[in-house]
Amino acid sequence: MAKTNLPLDADRLWADVMDLAEITDPARPYTRRSFTALFLEGREWVDRRFQEAGLTTRIDTAGNLIGRLEGRNPALGVIAIGSHSDTVPSGGRFDGIAGVATGLEIIRALRDAGIQLDHTIEVIDFLAEEPSEYGLSCVGSRGMTGSLDDTMLTLTEPSGETLRDALVRVGGDPNRLEMAKRDDIRAFLELHIEQGIVLESQSLDVGIVTSIVGIRRLEVIFQGEADHAGTTPMALRHDALVAAAATVTSVRRVAEELAVEGTDYFVATVGILGVDPSASNIVPGRCRLVIDARTTQPALTQRFVEIIDLESAAHAAAARVTRASFAMLSDGPPVACDAGLRAALRQGAEDLGLSLTDLPSGAGHDAAFMSRICPSAMIFVPCRAGKSHAPEEWSDRDQIAAGAAAIYQAVKALDSQIR
Amino acid sequence: MAKTNLPLDADRLWADVMDLAEITDPARPYTRRSFTALFLEGREWVDRRFQEAGLTTRIDTAGNLIGRLEGRNPALGVIAIGSHSDTVPSGGRFDGIAGVATGLEIIRALRDAGIQLDHTIEVIDFLAEEPSEYGLSCVGSRGMTGSLDDTMLTLTEPSGETLRDALVRVGGDPNRLEMAKRDDIRAFLELHIEQGIVLESQSLDVGIVTSIVGIRRLEVIFQGEADHAGTTPMALRHDALVAAAATVTSVRRVAEELAVEGTDYFVATVGILGVDPSASNIVPGRCRLVIDARTTQPALTQRFVEIIDLESAAHAAAARVTRASFAMLSDGPPVACDAGLRAALRQGAEDLGLSLTDLPSGAGHDAAFMSRICPSAMIFVPCRAGKSHAPEEWSDRDQIAAGAAAIYQAVKALDSQIR
Repeated sequence: MAKTNLPLDADRLWADVMDLAEITDPARPYTRRSFTALFLEGREWVDRRFQEAGLTTRIDTAGNLIGRLEGRNPALGVIAIGSHSDTVPSGGRFDGIAGVATGLEIIRALRDAGIQLDHTIEVIDFLAEEPSEYGLSCVGSRGMTGSLDDTMLTLTEPSGETLRDALVRVGGDPNRLEMAKRDDIRAFLELHIEQGIVLESQSLDVGIVTSIVGIRRLEVIFQGEADHAGTTPMALRHDALVAAAATVTSVRRVAEELAVEGTDYFVATVGILGVDPSASNIVPGRCRLVIDARTTQPALTQRFVEIIDLESAAHAAAARVTRASFAMLSDGPPVACDAGLRAALRQGAEDLGLSLTDLPSGAGHDAAFMSRICPSAMIFVPCRAGKSHAPEEWSDRDQIAAGAAAIYQAVKALDSQIR
Repeated sequence: MAKTNLPLDADRLWADVMDLAEITDPARPYTRRSFTALFLEGREWVDRRFQEAGLTTRIDTAGNLIGRLEGRNPALGVIAIGSHSDTVPSGGRFDGIAGVATGLEIIRALRDAGIQLDHTIEVIDFLAEEPSEYGLSCVGSRGMTGSLDDTMLTLTEPSGETLRDALVRVGGDPNRLEMAKRDDIRAFLELHIEQGIVLESQSLDVGIVTSIVGIRRLEVIFQGEADHAGTTPMALRHDALVAAAATVTSVRRVAEELAVEGTDYFVATVGILGVDPSASNIVPGRCRLVIDARTTQPALTQRFVEIIDLESAAHAAAARVTRASFAMLSDGPPVACDAGLRAALRQGAEDLGLSLTDLPSGAGHDAAFMSRICPSAMIFVPCRAGKSHAPEEWSDRDQIAAGAAAIYQAVKALDSQIR
């Protein structure tokens, strides 16, 4: 690895990431939730940096902030680089913004090197990649790919505002969403922290993402009877938590089995388990679980769901409760990254002497939606101990710079390859 | 059963219960939470009825509302009857207030019959029998029995008010709590709805409570790692919910085994299971369970805790998480009801031709604290389908009247027996 000789300014890139991190809810760093005043303050900052780098900026009707530099031959279309500037609550400094700052630094590095591309280049800060208060993630990349439908716009956050109204607040136009849909992008590239420990554990510089997992979310609700915990004998109970707990155990066991079965990636998690009424002296009357299953191979998720369907029904019967819901909340298929773009990223990394590996992405990303309208690919940089979505999220200055430089190399190569 | 010939006015008693039920949070009947404005409004109503019945009323330093009728020979001490007028959130119309109204009706029935007792008689509306926002139940009966200590007074409700300050608001005096402790009560009798289905399932009129279960509460906390649900392979997880779910299953299995082992009563419940951070895409990093174990035989709870201690530790190890806490939150021993008072209640019920059975109380009651300072006993009346702590809580007019009449008979008998 020859980080000292990178074709961009690692300090300048790092400063962007650190500066934007300062725009946070001070009570719970690092928080810049989409659609909030802080988010808009961060956006103003990003917009100003874009303009300082010579980009023309606009917000599309889906609420994405786009910086654009015209190419010598605009008819060739656009090479886009981007990610997002929103965070989860109490998230980190890198998830999302490292990819936006990468696009920005590539623009500046090209300018510093006196390079003008044939293709127009865009840097995109997608709106609300993280699950928003409206119950939807990847709002902006859905919009840019024609995947943001009217039903989604009627989603509301807890105080009642619709996503439609929120979109107007951040500069979008829900009545003209079709204007956001693009057919002129020839390539989309995204840098992101790995959010896992593969690169760190093998001391590698970058990961070339082979595919982005498909994510299926299931909701399971058990309905029992909220009886008195003191006066209801064990044999007369209808305890919803007993069925829910057994289902958590099933999810774990089946996921472990599928994960080691072959070479495909599979994980499943019960991240939400709500107990109602949640009092120490009342038998749980109702429990709601959300199961998140992710894979590079849809057949595994299919088998997983079939087994959990059978087992959760059996757990309900054993606990004498009703399984009131076994429903699919969402289902995104896995997305293979474009082979041509992967090759360009690999070549770019190898040119710089970076160590690398191919790996799947266990997390969803804007690139998964972008692949619906254009060739898309991703590069991962290591993050310490795999921690993400947490204040301790960390990636080194040189690690981010190395990943960004690989994209810089790829962009230059693609500019002449894509005709 | 000869309810038509009861020595008290069933309609008048019923009207009190129904009238007080009208004093409720209209958005969630029937709610009259201790220390709230509604609670104080209910108290004013009770106080007025007490006075209309000829009782002298006061609030003691522990916040209990007491109506008193002097006996012909005050040196003999006090026979007390009572329960509580506060409710759980979205509770019922009977839990607590039926016992207060019973005391009131007995006073009126004695007056109507021209009977003056040798003993002074008191009707007590105990403060905050239900778990209050300050995290404590039986506040008033603790205070009357010298069991409300300074540490408890420092408990705070979510907005920060201390129990000490709240006690002042409802007319108590936390600086003179010792004034509330009584040594002049010779008998305490409490009528309560069963909150179970024993009486209903056997079509019985009343239950003579043999003992009130001991309640032990345990807190178990599992600490894992809140990793990304997509990027953390199954083999590298530290999922706190996996350990918590297995512990729920253990609690259920062990409780079922102990419940059928002999004649003693045993139940155990996980009513609270909190997942942190509770997001569908994050592996649960921390889980907190509260286990509630109740029994008439402390040795069963002892064995239960020993087994759950071992099994929950094993579940933590299997899930590669830490068991950060295995702590006793509270531990009240079972309380046997006074044999003499039980005999008086039984005789009173038999005199009236009521069908009855002995049964333990699976719920805690003010009588359990009162037994620390005086002979105490309880009578249960049936409640429909065992439902309690819910709006559908129901007991028939004649069922309540029958139970109250049995206490009326017992009070008359005890007045000459207790010297």
